Amino acid sequence: MQTVDIIRKKRNGGELTAEEIQFLIKGFAKDEIPDYQMAAWAMAVFFRGMSDRETADLTLAMVESGEQVDLSQIEGRKVDKHSTGGVGDTTTLIVAPLVASAGVPVAKLSGRGLGHTGGTIDKLESFRGFTTGLSTEQFVKQVNELKIAVAGQTANLTPADKQLYALRDVTATVDSIPLIASSIMSKKIAGGADAIVLDVKTGKGAFMKDEESAVQLAEAMVGIGSRVGRQTVAVISDMNQPLGYAVGNALEVKEAIDTLQGRGPDDLTELSLTLGAHMVVLAGKTDSVTEARGLLEGKLKDGSALAKFKEFVEAQGGDPRAVDQTDLLPTVSRQVEVPAPEDGTIAQLEAEEIGLCAMQLGAGRATKEDRIDHAVGIVLHKKVGDVVSRGEAIATLHVNDESKVKAVQNRLLQAVTITKERIVPPRQIRSIVTERGVEKV
Amino acid sequence: MQTVDIIRKKRNGGELTAEEIQFLIKGFAKDEIPDYQMAAWAMAVFFRGMSDRETADLTLAMVESGEQVDLSQIEGRKVDKHSTGGVGDTTTLIVAPLVASAGVPVAKLSGRGLGHTGGTIDKLESFRGFTTGLSTEQFVKQVNELKIAVAGQTANLTPADKQLYALRDVTATVDSIPLIASSIMSKKIAGGADAIVLDVKTGKGAFMKDEESAVQLAEAMVGIGSRVGRQTVAVISDMNQPLGYAVGNALEVKEAIDTLQGRGPDDLTELSLTLGAHMVVLAGKTDSVTEARGLLEGKLKDGSALAKFKEFVEAQGGDPRAVDQTDLLPTVSRQVEVPAPEDGTIAQLEAEEIGLCAMQLGAGRATKEDRIDHAVGIVLHKKVGDVVSRGEAIATLHVNDESKVKAVQNRLLQAVTITKERIVPPRQIRSIVTERGVEKV
Repeated sequence: MQTVDIIRKKRNGGELTAEEIQFLIKGFAKDEIPDYQMAAWAMAVFFRGMSDRETADLTLAMVESGEQVDLSQIEGRKVDKHSTGGVGDTTTLIVAPLVASAGVPVAKLSGRGLGHTGGTIDKLESFRGFTTGLSTEQFVKQVNELKIAVAGQTANLTPADKQLYALRDVTATVDSIPLIASSIMSKKIAGGADAIVLDVKTGKGAFMKDEESAVQLAEAMVGIGSRVGRQTVAVISDMNQPLGYAVGNALEVKEAIDTLQGRGPDDLTELSLTLGAHMVVLAGKTDSVTEARGLLEGKLKDGSALAKFKEFVEAQGGDPRAVDQTDLLPTVSRQVEVPAPEDGTIAQLEAEEIGLCAMQLGAGRATKEDRIDHAVGIVLHKKVGDVVSRGEAIATLHVNDESKVKAVQNRLLQAVTITKERIVPPRQIRSIVTERGVEKV
Repeated sequence: MQTVDIIRKKRNGGELTAEEIQFLIKGFAKDEIPDYQMAAWAMAVFFRGMSDRETADLTLAMVESGEQVDLSQIEGRKVDKHSTGGVGDTTTLIVAPLVASAGVPVAKLSGRGLGHTGGTIDKLESFRGFTTGLSTEQFVKQVNELKIAVAGQTANLTPADKQLYALRDVTATVDSIPLIASSIMSKKIAGGADAIVLDVKTGKGAFMKDEESAVQLAEAMVGIGSRVGRQTVAVISDMNQPLGYAVGNALEVKEAIDTLQGRGPDDLTELSLTLGAHMVVLAGKTDSVTEARGLLEGKLKDGSALAKFKEFVEAQGGDPRAVDQTDLLPTVSRQVEVPAPEDGTIAQLEAEEIGLCAMQLGAGRATKEDRIDHAVGIVLHKKVGDVVSRGEAIATLHVNDESKVKAVQNRLLQAVTITKERIVPPRQIRSIVTERGVEKV
């Protein structure tokens, strides 16, 4: 088998066999196939696409390139949740204890990640003493006992995907749906998931700017799941404006706690219940999504979801008192309001720009070496569709570095559009993609 | 300027600026832009193509990547001739002395090359003592005195093209018309040509299998010539069967001498006169191609073309007696006839396969280190459209290594198709592509 023939076959619109795809990915992972051949192949895939079968085979080849987490010692069906990434997205902190309180095992491997704010682990480290350094035995034991654990990813999962992603990043081959879909799914499968619920964001603050391509990506991932025996459901959700009001690590933890108490922002509550309900169904706990949703609403109301969160924080060494007294979480030295420059209705709150404002305040990392300030960030007071008066606070900046205030204030105002027209708030959930097709919400 | 942005721009169908193309080629030649980015770019070019302007800018960027030959000390307009490569193509050995005898300066830089038979230099080395190791001064002086010289290429011409070609070869990005066109034209321009006549082959034994893509390639090259001030004419010629009857180094030299004596094969004579006539016009010696052709026919008839060839061989140290007594050229120990297996008409003589037969006998090189046997090769006795009787010789193998005979005989017969139907011989010249457009012949 010759690499150049495989590249030519894809270039000419052919469908690669499982053997050809394995040959490529194995050879690449072993540095036997050079970067320049993979780059040419990735560009050919950009133009020619891949069939569902090819995409599934690529996913499996990447899974096989590294270690695979064995969660078989955990009782029940392990349903993982993944988000394609957005601003102010704290749903994992809500959904995980919420479904765990309904008896669904949540065995989450998480990362720190680069971006506007930290990853799930960084957010959880807002609790003094919280650790994700669990051994496999501790991890399995905790999930079996509490139904929830979050551990840092230590195994060498899907190294071929990491290598390919780094190459795609510098060769303008990132935005190919089969390559994105197989990258995401390979990580979830290698992480040991039996079933997967995906939160595919769409809008200005998302990778998929329009709903059509978000649905295509979702379909590709659901298709992979179906072919490799990991039932997958994708929720297409809005990411034009930040999710909820808080953007920042401790600020988002506080918002998650509010939501677990049943008084969170509408959009965040709605998304958490939707994602959670699909997880409950995939775990086999209820037959219908409606039933699952009712179950979860009950867990919010009766305090079991919050209690589960507190148990979980304590089990991993965090200070559980901070769940009830959120002023024990890291706080800033100064809060600065950002007043509205005019009367009107909020027409736009550009998610990506607001995320970058939080990053500028110190909430995120640009490089792996950067340190995160858990306390800083932004709390919005208005969302799209809300009426605002001149001088009224649109947002509050939570600041530790005084010198950043002016620039961030200006940048934030640039991200806001106020109009005299009536604005209908966006629907948070756009559609649900399952093996049966796309269901508009 | 970021390489990834340039790749993305081309990927999305954009037209690159001259600066962007220079940035790419300069960076690549200096090893500042890695192979994987050039490979992704080349694949994007495969799918998106390049405008005439981009193709010309790419050509110039490759010319500027290396040395450029200065032929300004040679009097008159230097017209170079280039063939896209075929089997039994000995036209250079005919056209060069032919047009030189009409006063057109021929300053040819040539190579040895890999393939079925040697390159022009290898063929000329069939003359005992012939050398192409001329200093620049000797080369210029000889062209000014004799109107003809052939030197080995020593300058480092278009290194970026060599580097890019090697990369395209292993990334399935060879067959892109703008990339082929700029590769060929950059070498001719760096070689000092004022004007260029191209012989673009089409057919089973050519790189361009169909006439339409041969015309497209020709148009791209004529377009480059026009934009960079090197008037270019392309002749589209048949390469389904070998050109002439001889395939081998000394065998082709003998055929060239026959043709210079006015008794060469029709196809080879026709192609040589056509290419030569366009060279004469581009050199400014006549106003029309018809007039030029008449001039050259005269030079064949009155013996001046042959005399020029003899002068040329002698000037470069070769034994001139071999021009009149071709039995002084290298000969083989054994000649083996290949008889026709049935009565009929020759429908096909697959050029590429026949070329590979000659190579198997030792006429060509697979790697730079291989030694060529100047004497060996194949002489056809029939061409497409000729009637043949069972047992009659289709070809004669000229052999030095007895052990090869059986295999080559069989392979040659596989390359021949005999039919009971009437076959019209193919037209040698298909069309002429100039700045004014395509002219069917």
